[in-house]
Amino acid sequence: MTNINIDHLPGGVTAVPGFLASGIAAGLKKSKPDIAVIYSPTLCSAAGVFTTNVVKAAPVLLNMKLLPQGYGFAHGIVVNSGNANACNGAQGLTDAQTMGAAAAKALGIEPQYMLVCSTGVIGVPLPMEKVLPGIERAVQQLSSGGGHDAAIAIKTTDLVTKEKAVQLEINGCNVTIGAMAKGSGMIHPNMATMLAFITTDAVIEPEVLHCALKEAVDSTFNMITIDGDTSTNDSVLILANGLADMPTIKAGSAEYALFVAALTEVCKSLAQSIARDGEGATTLLEVTVKNAATIQDARLAARAVAGSNLLKSAVFGRDANWGRIICAVGYSGAKFNPEKVDIYLGDILVAQNGGAVDFSEEAATAVLAEDKVTVTVDLHAGNHRATAWGCDLTYEYVRINASYRT
Amino acid sequence: MTNINIDHLPGGVTAVPGFLASGIAAGLKKSKPDIAVIYSPTLCSAAGVFTTNVVKAAPVLLNMKLLPQGYGFAHGIVVNSGNANACNGAQGLTDAQTMGAAAAKALGIEPQYMLVCSTGVIGVPLPMEKVLPGIERAVQQLSSGGGHDAAIAIKTTDLVTKEKAVQLEINGCNVTIGAMAKGSGMIHPNMATMLAFITTDAVIEPEVLHCALKEAVDSTFNMITIDGDTSTNDSVLILANGLADMPTIKAGSAEYALFVAALTEVCKSLAQSIARDGEGATTLLEVTVKNAATIQDARLAARAVAGSNLLKSAVFGRDANWGRIICAVGYSGAKFNPEKVDIYLGDILVAQNGGAVDFSEEAATAVLAEDKVTVTVDLHAGNHRATAWGCDLTYEYVRINASYRT
Repeated sequence: MTNINIDHLPGGVTAVPGFLASGIAAGLKKSKPDIAVIYSPTLCSAAGVFTTNVVKAAPVLLNMKLLPQGYGFAHGIVVNSGNANACNGAQGLTDAQTMGAAAAKALGIEPQYMLVCSTGVIGVPLPMEKVLPGIERAVQQLSSGGGHDAAIAIKTTDLVTKEKAVQLEINGCNVTIGAMAKGSGMIHPNMATMLAFITTDAVIEPEVLHCALKEAVDSTFNMITIDGDTSTNDSVLILANGLADMPTIKAGSAEYALFVAALTEVCKSLAQSIARDGEGATTLLEVTVKNAATIQDARLAARAVAGSNLLKSAVFGRDANWGRIICAVGYSGAKFNPEKVDIYLGDILVAQNGGAVDFSEEAATAVLAEDKVTVTVDLHAGNHRATAWGCDLTYEYVRINASYRT
Repeated sequence: MTNINIDHLPGGVTAVPGFLASGIAAGLKKSKPDIAVIYSPTLCSAAGVFTTNVVKAAPVLLNMKLLPQGYGFAHGIVVNSGNANACNGAQGLTDAQTMGAAAAKALGIEPQYMLVCSTGVIGVPLPMEKVLPGIERAVQQLSSGGGHDAAIAIKTTDLVTKEKAVQLEINGCNVTIGAMAKGSGMIHPNMATMLAFITTDAVIEPEVLHCALKEAVDSTFNMITIDGDTSTNDSVLILANGLADMPTIKAGSAEYALFVAALTEVCKSLAQSIARDGEGATTLLEVTVKNAATIQDARLAARAVAGSNLLKSAVFGRDANWGRIICAVGYSGAKFNPEKVDIYLGDILVAQNGGAVDFSEEAATAVLAEDKVTVTVDLHAGNHRATAWGCDLTYEYVRINASYRT
């Protein structure tokens, strides 16, 4: 990855000049904000990546139509939480379109420039009698300081809001990237019930923006796993309003590399926040696989380890059970020689050449007691590396998901 | 599957004429039996299927050498629980060979006719000073009534012993099949920390026996999932001593079909027992996917649903959350039209054409309160069907695996 100097800014999507946002309570959830709008008066380059689940929620299908091949133009995004608008048949599609049209009408723009997202329970029709007045109210409350309200309104079982903003210099011009995300259950590589919205003032064509987004997502959002369940609604959307005083960022240029690096930093920060806020989690689990033969091997192995229920339970129990780590690498699909694998918990070597070594159980338990647990697996098979993020598996995860609808 | 009349017999591996077994406590586990031997004085056709994990325990590597291409000849099997003998490097292989040689010497047979299995914790060398006298004692205690002792000695976190025996008639000749299995965590399709040992007096060549075993395993043991973790040690081994008074069973014959059907019945019974005894489970989850376009689609979808942490948590919470079922089918990799999917909980239609239908929550909760929960997914995409078995995800699963080593 390109090394860049970036400044970390407070705030999220409205940290970027020219973007407005809001979040209000429309009554889909009990007394919590549940409708958010992001809006740019300037038409933006827009790009998105969407869930790989065959069962796609209605708003995902709508956005895929509005952004054919993953990119196009948009003025904004309207989002509701509390209801996924998935598995609602033709009515679901109509409702998603009506949501976008209602926001567009209130904003005085064409409906094809309004993207739509939903998150929450599957298979329950949207209560449009609450949604539509809610959208109208959210549009009225749009402001250049509304990013945090929007970040609150997109939460479901999330305990914390997830926002990030950075500024970088590209050829002497300041470029800002802001973002917010939600997600804490049904999280698995390839887009799980996870929504992320990114704004930037970069000057960039939709197709190039889409490439940049895919690059950033592959090493960040696609490397987190909470429970192995890939959802029907996952989407990452980015809007670039082009207000920065700079020449257009061309594909493959040094400027493009800088932009991707900053975008990756933003996505990584949000991805880590999502993993750390995994349902019931007490610990962020960061798994790095290094010296893999290919990047695919590194990613497969890192994700398998971060997603192993057995390891996740052991981490919750602060048990340095490295056998479960090598076992997960073994079934990940990655190619490697089991007799050349070294495993570290934090800085402690717990297995060498695929077998046991003496280590201090006390020191290992101390590593596992941190609020971030780092596992490093050295495959000694090449020079590729990948990092995946997950969390421990706890009683609380079971409790939350045993009674989600009730 | 061929319809056959089979008689269910009491007992397990020693229900078959000509097989002896035993189980004794050698001190690998705290005061519980931990070494088992199965033995046939007559040399048997032998076949095995083994874990797909790249990291294979030493005894798995040994058995794969003794049964090249999965089949060959054997007199018996020696098994220890309490230690997986995995990730122990060259020492592990030596120890596995020494186990087989010790059993063979005590039995007065050639060591290449003794198969070896281990199950338990990974990465801890076998305490051979306990194992070797244990094997000697187990051989001394071999008896035609020792099947149950053997079934006890192979358990790890299993709550119950798992045995099954059936008798069927093939062209007027009685053929018996007996079996035992262990496994309750690290269980996932393609052989997870699951061991199963099957005996039969059928007259059948090793290669044909191997085909029969693979057919039976694909629709039974490979269709169970407890936690998605495929272990380093899984093995299913079958020994056929040929003592039944019958002509040799030829590949592709009617007799072969009958034998496979009976073998499948035995494997299915044990597979269900393993799923029901999943770590911490309160409920057996049986997921049938019907009218899939291909058998692969049916299997992928059934296993994904049975393995979904979100659904498993919902079943524990007795929550009829069908959205999680269709979501899992969606990410399974199976091809289908989401708008044609019907879902049943027990006999209750809970979703139709991929969307909600009115159903009695009370009746659905009653279905979920049974000790076996049946989910049926109709894809309306073809005429293939598959069933997978799993269990609910409970606080107890987390507790067991948070502290497995301690």
